[in-house]
Amino acid sequence: MTRWPLPEPMKLALEQAQEAARQGEVPIGAVVVHRGAVIAAAHNRPRALTDPTAHAEILAIRAAAARLGQERLEECDLWVTLEPCPMCAGAITHARIARVYYAAPDPKGGAVEHGARLFDQPTCLHRPEVYGGLGEAEAAALLRGFFRARR
Amino acid sequence: MTRWPLPEPMKLALEQAQEAARQGEVPIGAVVVHRGAVIAAAHNRPRALTDPTAHAEILAIRAAAARLGQERLEECDLWVTLEPCPMCAGAITHARIARVYYAAPDPKGGAVEHGARLFDQPTCLHRPEVYGGLGEAEAAALLRGFFRARR
Repeated sequence: MTRWPLPEPMKLALEQAQEAARQGEVPIGAVVVHRGAVIAAAHNRPRALTDPTAHAEILAIRAAAARLGQERLEECDLWVTLEPCPMCAGAITHARIARVYYAAPDPKGGAVEHGARLFDQPTCLHRPEVYGGLGEAEAAALLRGFFRARR
Repeated sequence: MTRWPLPEPMKLALEQAQEAARQGEVPIGAVVVHRGAVIAAAHNRPRALTDPTAHAEILAIRAAAARLGQERLEECDLWVTLEPCPMCAGAITHARIARVYYAAPDPKGGAVEHGARLFDQPTCLHRPEVYGGLGEAEAAALLRGFFRARR
């Protein structure tokens, strides 16, 4: 079998997740793409930054907004290795991200296809297009390895 | 009638909201209290910071975590002038805030007693105690005045 190659932004997001693990952070990475160009890449850093909001998606969105000099990221896509939590899904809505690509589902902490399913709420002001499963095996293996080593 | 005086942290949160309005930001303010002492106060600043995540609660939580040098704010209370949105409610859970006091309900954007009701989700990892309505008239008047002036 020839495995379909992962899109470049998801490869970068997985590299960010690996970097997080090297730094002792839960291995989750995120990348923001604007008109085909990567404009921000980040990984989970709540411990290093002493910041409970420092998820990969939040850091990538903040960096992308700073880079573009605008609060709204309407022409941007977010690539992330794990299904976003409620905080990050909320930030995706506020930022008006156009498309979200995520690798592994997160039945416990996710808020896109699990839990609060935020983008399906009638009060949700902006629903991105959502694509799941690209790089799922790679992203899940990183998380499993990280937590296994800490048990 | 003698009106029951507002608790000091909610007065401070309302002052923060007024400062937001003076700066052209949606008037919402937040304060974090740790063992009875105010350790962080912030207002909504997405425009000034070019940051879609820069809600009052997020900025106050980040400042409080930096001030205490810890990711989790287990002994902290958050006072905020408006019912938190999904992003901020998620951050409150990640930060393990003990108690949330909010002034005005937000039927359109709130995620505590409206919308996704995040703290009531079975997957929610941490539910703060929640108290609503203190300073509701003052907080709602600030928001109404702000949006009326812009119409």
